[in-house]
Amino acid sequence: MSEPLRIALAGLGTVGAGVIRLIEANAALIARRAGRPLQVTVVSARDRNKDRGIDLSPYAWEDDMVIMGERADVDVVVELVGGSDGPALALARTTIEAGKGLVTANKAMIAHHGLELAQKAEAAAVPLKFEAAVAGGIPVIKGLREGAAANEFSRVYGILNGTCNYILSTMEDTGRDFAAVLAEAQAKGYAEADPAFDIEGTDAAHKLSILAAIAYGAKIDFAAVDTTGISKILAADIAQADSLGYVIRLIGMASTENSNGTERLFQRVQPHLVPFDHPLAHVDGATNAVVAEGNFSGRLLFQGAGAGDGPTASAVVADLIDIAREMERGGEAGAPFSVPVAELVAMDRADTGHRMGRSYIRFVVADRPGVLAEITAAMRDAGVSIESLIQKGRHDEDGEVLVAMVTHEGPESAVAEAVRMLEGSASLTRAPLVMHILAD
Amino acid sequence: MSEPLRIALAGLGTVGAGVIRLIEANAALIARRAGRPLQVTVVSARDRNKDRGIDLSPYAWEDDMVIMGERADVDVVVELVGGSDGPALALARTTIEAGKGLVTANKAMIAHHGLELAQKAEAAAVPLKFEAAVAGGIPVIKGLREGAAANEFSRVYGILNGTCNYILSTMEDTGRDFAAVLAEAQAKGYAEADPAFDIEGTDAAHKLSILAAIAYGAKIDFAAVDTTGISKILAADIAQADSLGYVIRLIGMASTENSNGTERLFQRVQPHLVPFDHPLAHVDGATNAVVAEGNFSGRLLFQGAGAGDGPTASAVVADLIDIAREMERGGEAGAPFSVPVAELVAMDRADTGHRMGRSYIRFVVADRPGVLAEITAAMRDAGVSIESLIQKGRHDEDGEVLVAMVTHEGPESAVAEAVRMLEGSASLTRAPLVMHILAD
Repeated sequence: MSEPLRIALAGLGTVGAGVIRLIEANAALIARRAGRPLQVTVVSARDRNKDRGIDLSPYAWEDDMVIMGERADVDVVVELVGGSDGPALALARTTIEAGKGLVTANKAMIAHHGLELAQKAEAAAVPLKFEAAVAGGIPVIKGLREGAAANEFSRVYGILNGTCNYILSTMEDTGRDFAAVLAEAQAKGYAEADPAFDIEGTDAAHKLSILAAIAYGAKIDFAAVDTTGISKILAADIAQADSLGYVIRLIGMASTENSNGTERLFQRVQPHLVPFDHPLAHVDGATNAVVAEGNFSGRLLFQGAGAGDGPTASAVVADLIDIAREMERGGEAGAPFSVPVAELVAMDRADTGHRMGRSYIRFVVADRPGVLAEITAAMRDAGVSIESLIQKGRHDEDGEVLVAMVTHEGPESAVAEAVRMLEGSASLTRAPLVMHILAD
Repeated sequence: MSEPLRIALAGLGTVGAGVIRLIEANAALIARRAGRPLQVTVVSARDRNKDRGIDLSPYAWEDDMVIMGERADVDVVVELVGGSDGPALALARTTIEAGKGLVTANKAMIAHHGLELAQKAEAAAVPLKFEAAVAGGIPVIKGLREGAAANEFSRVYGILNGTCNYILSTMEDTGRDFAAVLAEAQAKGYAEADPAFDIEGTDAAHKLSILAAIAYGAKIDFAAVDTTGISKILAADIAQADSLGYVIRLIGMASTENSNGTERLFQRVQPHLVPFDHPLAHVDGATNAVVAEGNFSGRLLFQGAGAGDGPTASAVVADLIDIAREMERGGEAGAPFSVPVAELVAMDRADTGHRMGRSYIRFVVADRPGVLAEITAAMRDAGVSIESLIQKGRHDEDGEVLVAMVTHEGPESAVAEAVRMLEGSASLTRAPLVMHILAD
C-alpha cells in the first residue's frame, strides 16, 4: 500500500463534518479501493471552537485557510466553505497555483469561476473536481463526462434542487399552498431561512450551467440560464395538472440548437408539467434526478439524494478516490470539463422564441362576464391552439376564478405573445403563469 | 491532438455494427472528449461476406481473430464475439498477453473467467474493461467502482434482464399469460429463439455476479448465485400482486452478511414483489435499472436501456474513451474489479435460511373441501405468520383454485419449510411459487 493522500479540509459545516465522518468510518474500504489511504492532515473553518460533534484533535488546525494548499503536508484541498467568491475562491486559486489538486462542492463558484479555475488547473496539471457541486451524491458529472462520453446529447435535464422538489411534492401530497409548505420546510430544516436562492431557481441554474458545459463542450454561461422559480405555483395549479395527468416539477434543461449553421446553447430552469409515465414524475421529496438523452445510449437516468451531509460527502470522497488512483498510477489529471478549456466553445444563447412545445397557461381572473372571451380571443389572435381548458371557482371564494388551459404543440413565442396581449387587462387579478409540458 | 487509439473489433453482429456506426457518427465529438481520435483499424467475424449494412472497406480484415491483439496496428481489442469460452476467451487471453487493452461486452466470459483475465491484465498493466457487460448502456460499473466508491453498500440490486422485464411488464399491461407474451416477444425479436438463458435468470445472474464482485471486493462467484427465473409466473400472480399494491419484477440482489465474524456473500436472482412506490416498480419494458444503497450516498438509482446495439455500443465506446484518456495522460490502467484480484476476498456463500423478510406464496389447488385447512396448517406448523390471503377460482375454470398469501416479516426458512411440508400433497395441482417482497 502506498503513502496516504494527504487532504486539507476547508469548511467544517455539515458537509465538512460528513467528509470527516466518512473518511473515518470507511477508511479501510477506501484504502483498498483507492490503493492508498485518504488522510485528513489539516482542517480550517471560521470558528475553531464551535462544537461540531466530531473530534478534530487528530488534525492540524490552520487559521489562514487560503494558504492551506501551500502546506508541505497537503496533496489535495477540499473546499467546503461556500460562496462564489471570497475565501472559497481565494483558496481555490492559491491551491491550484501551489500545484495541488482541488475538490469542491461549491456550485456557485464553479458556475461563476469554473472556467478560470479549470484553465489554471490544466496549466498546472493538477486535478480540479466538483462532482458534489451537482445533484449531491449522484455521480452525474462522471456519468456525463465519462459514462456517456460516447454520445451526442439531444437533451440533458433533471430535477436539480431538492428543496423545490420537496415543496412541490409535498404540495401535491397535501393539497396545501406554497407558503404553508415552505414555512414547514423551513421549520424542518429542508429550506433555508432565506429561501430565495433555492425557490427562485438560482441554485438549479448554477448546477444546470455546469452540466450544460460538460454535455455540450460549451463555456459555462450561468448568466444565460433562463430561470423561473416555483413561488408563483398555486395549490390549484397542482390540482389542475393532476387532473390532466401531470405532476409539476422544477426542471433544469439544456440542449443545443443549430441556427444558421451556428450551435446555440439553450439553458432553462422552469417549472414543468411532467407526464405521470415519465420517470421524473416519480421523483419525490428532496431527491434529485438527471436524464441524459444520448444518440446511442438512449435515455439514461441518474437518481439519488441531491443534498445532505452523507450524500454530498460521498461525492466529495469519490473525487478524492479518483485523484488518489490517478496519482497512484502516475497519470495526469484530465480536463475538468471533459475537454480542455481552450477547446470549449463560447456558444450564443439560443433564442427560445421558435421552440415548439405544449404549454400550460393559468389565469386567475375576476368572476364576471366576458373574461373567458377576452382570454380565448387573445389565444386566437396570437395563434395559440387550445387543447383543453378548465374554468374553476377557487375554493377560498373571493370572487376569483381559475382558468387553466393546455395548448396543442406550437411555438412558445405564440404563447408568450398571447400572455403579453393580456398584460394589464383588468380581468386578470394575478399575473398569468406559463409552464411548459415536458415532451417525451 | 495525439495519435488515434487504434482498435481491433472482433465480432460484427448488431453490437459490433453499432460500435462502428457510433465511432463514425460521433467521431469529432469523441476525439475532442478523448483528446485523440478512435480509429477502427481491423475487424474480424466468422463470415466475411455477410451483408451487415455497414461499409467495412475502410478496415483491414483479419481471418484469425484470436491473433488480432498481436498486430502492430492495434492498441486495444474490442471483443464482441460472445460465449464464455471458445474464440472469445482465446482472443481475450492472447490480447492481454500481447500487452494490449481489452474491452468486452461479454458478461458470460467475465462471470466465468473475469478473475483470470483481470489478473493477467494487472500483471501486464493493460486495461480490461467491461462496462457493456452489465446493464447495457447504463454506466453502472463505473457508478459502483468510481462514482459511489466511498461507500459501503448495504445492498446492490436491480432489474438486469430486459427480456424478462419486457415480458413481465407486458403481462402486467395486457393480462396475458407468460407463454403468449414470450411467443410475441420472440416474434418481435425481444426474446431469443432459445429463451432459457434469459427467462431462467442465467443472464441476470452473470451480471449480478460481476456487480457483486465490484461492490463487495469479492472474488466473482457466479456458481453461488441462487437463481430462479420467471417462467412459473402466472397472469393470476400478476393480478394478485397488483391488488396487493405490487408489481412483479425479476430482481438480482447482492449483499454481505456477517456470520460468526466472517463476511459471507449473498447473491440471488429471483422474481420479487416490488411495492408501487419503489423506483423499480416504474421500470417498464426492456429497461434495466440498478440500485446501490451506500452508507453515505443513500439510495442511488441508475436506469436506462439494458440492451440493443446503440446502448451497448455507447458503453463499449465509453470504455474506449477511458482507455484513450488514460493512455494519453500516461497513467496505468486501474484494477478491473476496483481492487487488485490478489486482494479480492473469496467469500463463502451466505446461508439464506435465516434471512428475514415478507413473502408471497401462491398455490394452485384442487377445488375441494379441506385444502385451505391443509395449507394454513402447514403455515402454522412451520411458524409462518400470514398477513393476508386470497382464494380465487381461476378464470379458465378447470376446477383449479388459486390461493395466494402474503406473510408477515419472518425467516425465509420457515416459508421454505411450510412449502416443503406441502410437497407431494394431492391437493396441489402445481408446484407452489414463492416470491420475496422487496423490502424498502
